[in-house]
Amino acid sequence: MRSFAGRDILSLDGFERAEFEHVFAVADELEPIARRRRNVDLLADKTLVTAFYQPSTRTRLAHEAAMHRLGGHVLGFADPKMTRAGDFYQESIKDVVHMLEYYGDAMVMRHFQQGAPHEAARWASIPVINGGDGWGEHPTQVLTDLYTVQRELGAVDGLTFLAIGDMRMRTMHSLGHALTQFDARMIAVAPPEMSLTDEFKAQIAERNLTIEEVDHVADAIAEADVIYVEPVVQADYTASREERGGEVSTTADNYRITRELLLDAKPHAMILHSLPRMDELPPDVDATRHARYWQEAYYGVVMRMALLALVMGAME
Amino acid sequence: MRSFAGRDILSLDGFERAEFEHVFAVADELEPIARRRRNVDLLADKTLVTAFYQPSTRTRLAHEAAMHRLGGHVLGFADPKMTRAGDFYQESIKDVVHMLEYYGDAMVMRHFQQGAPHEAARWASIPVINGGDGWGEHPTQVLTDLYTVQRELGAVDGLTFLAIGDMRMRTMHSLGHALTQFDARMIAVAPPEMSLTDEFKAQIAERNLTIEEVDHVADAIAEADVIYVEPVVQADYTASREERGGEVSTTADNYRITRELLLDAKPHAMILHSLPRMDELPPDVDATRHARYWQEAYYGVVMRMALLALVMGAME
Amino acid sequence: MRSFAGRDILSLDGFERAEFEHVFAVADELEPIARRRRNVDLLADKTLVTAFYQPSTRTRLAHEAAMHRLGGHVLGFADPKMTRAGDFYQESIKDVVHMLEYYGDAMVMRHFQQGAPHEAARWASIPVINGGDGWGEHPTQVLTDLYTVQRELGAVDGLTFLAIGDMRMRTMHSLGHALTQFDARMIAVAPPEMSLTDEFKAQIAERNLTIEEVDHVADAIAEADVIYVEPVVQADYTASREERGGEVSTTADNYRITRELLLDAKPHAMILHSLPRMDELPPDVDATRHARYWQEAYYGVVMRMALLALVMGAME
Repeated sequence: MRSFAGRDILSLDGFERAEFEHVFAVADELEPIARRRRNVDLLADKTLVTAFYQPSTRTRLAHEAAMHRLGGHVLGFADPKMTRAGDFYQESIKDVVHMLEYYGDAMVMRHFQQGAPHEAARWASIPVINGGDGWGEHPTQVLTDLYTVQRELGAVDGLTFLAIGDMRMRTMHSLGHALTQFDARMIAVAPPEMSLTDEFKAQIAERNLTIEEVDHVADAIAEADVIYVEPVVQADYTASREERGGEVSTTADNYRITRELLLDAKPHAMILHSLPRMDELPPDVDATRHARYWQEAYYGVVMRMALLALVMGAME
Repeated sequence: MRSFAGRDILSLDGFERAEFEHVFAVADELEPIARRRRNVDLLADKTLVTAFYQPSTRTRLAHEAAMHRLGGHVLGFADPKMTRAGDFYQESIKDVVHMLEYYGDAMVMRHFQQGAPHEAARWASIPVINGGDGWGEHPTQVLTDLYTVQRELGAVDGLTFLAIGDMRMRTMHSLGHALTQFDARMIAVAPPEMSLTDEFKAQIAERNLTIEEVDHVADAIAEADVIYVEPVVQADYTASREERGGEVSTTADNYRITRELLLDAKPHAMILHSLPRMDELPPDVDATRHARYWQEAYYGVVMRMALLALVMGAME
Repeated sequence: MRSFAGRDILSLDGFERAEFEHVFAVADELEPIARRRRNVDLLADKTLVTAFYQPSTRTRLAHEAAMHRLGGHVLGFADPKMTRAGDFYQESIKDVVHMLEYYGDAMVMRHFQQGAPHEAARWASIPVINGGDGWGEHPTQVLTDLYTVQRELGAVDGLTFLAIGDMRMRTMHSLGHALTQFDARMIAVAPPEMSLTDEFKAQIAERNLTIEEVDHVADAIAEADVIYVEPVVQADYTASREERGGEVSTTADNYRITRELLLDAKPHAMILHSLPRMDELPPDVDATRHARYWQEAYYGVVMRMALLALVMGAME
């Protein structure tokens, strides 16, 4: 297995089973620090640079929280408008990287353009972590998700993942790549205009994961061990509610996980959602035995602790 | 007295005399750290989460400065637009809390809606500090104010507080609640449309503090030991100067603390103002013996050091 | 030489040769910390306050990175709109300083008004560093630049600086002041409407630096040891690209440093640019032996480490 020290985390395409296992083992080792709520000194001599070209709460703050739990330092930007990088000049990724690489020891980047973190990694002398790139990938989210599954259900192998929502989303791509490395099934339910591309399905199938597609959640809910939910946003994804005149699109019933629907679910079936949510996951589901998205938020910190400790060379 | 460890600081309604005294004693103990300008390690293993849904300079930075003085870590957001919490999704307080609670060990929240920090505290597994909630309360500000009074005048008991300005402001509510626990007088001067509600006065009167109301500052200035000033903003409180066409409302003379007016004040009378100010407190007052609002800013850090150390369990 | 402990860094006007030499020596001493990428504890008990009234990436983050490399704490604002200081109230510098001075142990301020950091220093009990004030000065940038020259070429004495671009820029003012303390030549090339003022030239000439002005870069390129480039922005400097309808002004050929032009440069001639750049410095120049602006970014952290350690009294 390649060493993680100095390595970029850009995609789960090519991330191998032994690597998942290793990252999960390191997370297991660091988890008690988060549980005990006591920051330690493991990364006290390191600085993380956050470069967020798009708004983010969970991904940005989970990386920051992980860094602080390990005693480290954080700087960067949460909004490119606050920087020269986002203004008038519209600096190239290369120019931005040849500044940020001197300000810290690893960088997490979210960008509206697919591939931007890869471009950054091309120029950076420090590890680059993809915090979500457009419709591309979101590797640290899906590492979090699978780690949550392993913690909650004991293993990823043998499970059926029912993915619901917009299949063009970056999490769905990362999930597909990840599941090729496990003995798992993946069933997808999406509106036709938001379905998986043939190209992506072919790429995944080459690695012996056939993604099954069904039309209705109700047809597959009984088989699911993990119910993996993403919003189905009919309107412009990036427009603010205000810009859209106060309207929030209502998710079609077929893509909503209701308490009624969950009556058909396996008792241990767990729901994951990277949040924030719209109405695809009504709040009354929070009280069911299936909800695991708060745990997912917690493990989001633990997973970033593991990844940051690994790429900065503080853990083997 | 209830322990402060793990406790929320949401309101001064019900905050008891012994608790004020204890918080002031802890502040006295920590104050030399701020005075010597040397950060220590008391909270080095803790992280504070800042959740500011409204702009703030003093409240946010005083909490951050306090945390840094005690060697701690800080993360969060100063502007909800920089997060997913404030965009399109308009996440519920519950959803936001079930993320932020994993990112640190206490949370300070400012919100435009009265009661939002209380709602947060309902869900959070970590202490929540109210950094100002709409027209509600601002407990840490008034704790700062009374601590400043105690430091500057030796005690709160026996003093007459002359409160001037908009009585609907959150600081005025917290001040009223606080003074019920001391042997103090409170006199209020406000424009009629900004006066105390009968409900609030009755609630305070039940605890044996009768708030006296007079029409003119000049009628009461000679009796005041503490002159407690808030702006009287005639126009929309939240509109920026730009949005209002460059206009800044001029405070009516009756609510302005001028040098001329102060000729009638007791020699030791001290002026507090949570700042920022408009023209209710002209800059030439800064040079009088009465000005204590810079000291108030300093003690704002000291008080937050005490509160953070207490709720995070680092001080008994 | 005056001690640096507690001192403001507002201007290079009056900054003496021995002071440059001392700052460079301290930077040499601290540079291995940055090179080894390991934060130390030198400023662990100190907090830096950042007060940026204008967007900045490099200046703000280089100061923050320096502080973190030395184990210190950072707080402040990167955007005045996120604070009360920038809203409706438009607080005076005095009021803002009499708050920020209690939040940390040194302050770096960028402001759109020339002289604002000087005004801040008048009121502050802590050292104030000018992070760029309108058309005024940018002392830490030019200290970085000259330090980069010394590291790359061994010394500043004996060199010819060819300054190209808008001579009204704050870096140009700081550069002029600085070079009076060295045995150096300065040649300026600028559009007529952006040339040095007679007043500034006279002030510099009094200290025995005569700034030579030529019309064409091509006429002077062969003499240059240091090619010091700033953008020539024909349009409104502060308007965003969007506000300007997507248009970015094209720099006239006379102020562009092209590979072709560099064929006439001395082999060791080095290009500095504080970045971000527009088209005055085409990306294909990055691959020439002359480019040193990435090193400049690196030394930007080292120089701020030296300045912060000095003004906070951690280095003699």
